Amino acid sequence: MNKIITIGREFGSGGRELGRRLAEELGYEYYDKEIIAAIAEKTSMSQEYVQEILEGKPHHLYPITIGQSMFVTDTFYLQHEQSIYLAQSEIIRDLAQRSNCVIVGRCADFILKDLKPYRIFVYADIESRIKRCIARNPDSQKHLTEKEVKKQILSIDKNRAKYYDFYTGNTWGDKNNYDICINTTDLVIKEIVPVLAKIF
Amino acid sequence: MNKIITIGREFGSGGRELGRRLAEELGYEYYDKEIIAAIAEKTSMSQEYVQEILEGKPHHLYPITIGQSMFVTDTFYLQHEQSIYLAQSEIIRDLAQRSNCVIVGRCADFILKDLKPYRIFVYADIESRIKRCIARNPDSQKHLTEKEVKKQILSIDKNRAKYYDFYTGNTWGDKNNYDICINTTDLVIKEIVPVLAKIF
Repeated sequence: MNKIITIGREFGSGGRELGRRLAEELGYEYYDKEIIAAIAEKTSMSQEYVQEILEGKPHHLYPITIGQSMFVTDTFYLQHEQSIYLAQSEIIRDLAQRSNCVIVGRCADFILKDLKPYRIFVYADIESRIKRCIARNPDSQKHLTEKEVKKQILSIDKNRAKYYDFYTGNTWGDKNNYDICINTTDLVIKEIVPVLAKIF
Repeated sequence: MNKIITIGREFGSGGRELGRRLAEELGYEYYDKEIIAAIAEKTSMSQEYVQEILEGKPHHLYPITIGQSMFVTDTFYLQHEQSIYLAQSEIIRDLAQRSNCVIVGRCADFILKDLKPYRIFVYADIESRIKRCIARNPDSQKHLTEKEVKKQILSIDKNRAKYYDFYTGNTWGDKNNYDICINTTDLVIKEIVPVLAKIF
């Protein structure tokens, strides 16, 4: 059976970097945004729309099919969200069966439960997450105050939690749903990765 | 500055074994029950009484001083609990300043906060904890049903949580208070220890 690592992460905790570096270190496939492109293809929705739905952003006036725009009602939106979740589940199961891999986010820990993935959750103090966000996006964040960045982080995590809780019936970030939870406050991600890789 | 590792753990999760093995692997001092003996000496209370108070067990008719018995009222009990907490804090701070060490339980993560200990929390599914308890104490547990062992585990953890929350103002087992949380369900402790040791 393939080795599968899933990574849940608080926004700004460096979880995505950790996943990418861990995949590199182990020679595993790494899946993150590739999944969005695959969902878009499978559902004939645009990548942007899929992304917006997955992030739970406000949902009016988005183009839902490639090359075609329309108003989206709440019912439509919910149907699309569910279609996207289903497509995502199929894609993730398909990827996991192909080879050893690291999958970031997207309820993969739950979707692949029967394949016994190693489930990592990455988190950090809010101050450290604010710093990480500003450091990795100096241009887009430079017009924002720390307070605004904090608001953005908390809002993204609120949506992640809502999405995860709805589709899994579990609580996002509850340590009981993970094999290991890593606090990245004061941590240099690339230093912890070689240690973590020894688990596998 | 000495390297200090503190270990919080759910009862039956193998946290104590993990701490002991980690100390061995790293060549650090290991402190667990030794602290109780030191508290008893410092407070002139019996080791058994100190242990009972730390575990939050029912508290009537216990011998409180070595070689002397008396009835303990609630006020007395609370005073003793606080004296014990103070003595424990002083002892733990003293030990942490002597050499690199691993300290299991006893709010050490909070007491040593300013010394920046590496804070580990160990937990596991209840089924796995029941199995571990029965396996490590086959004689004392053999007259208990699984349901009774479960009740015992949950009661001990409830007391640990109450004690920790009261003295630290934090929530016992909340991942935000730890640097790493390790789920030991399906894990062989001695296999994970050499990996963990690489963090230090």
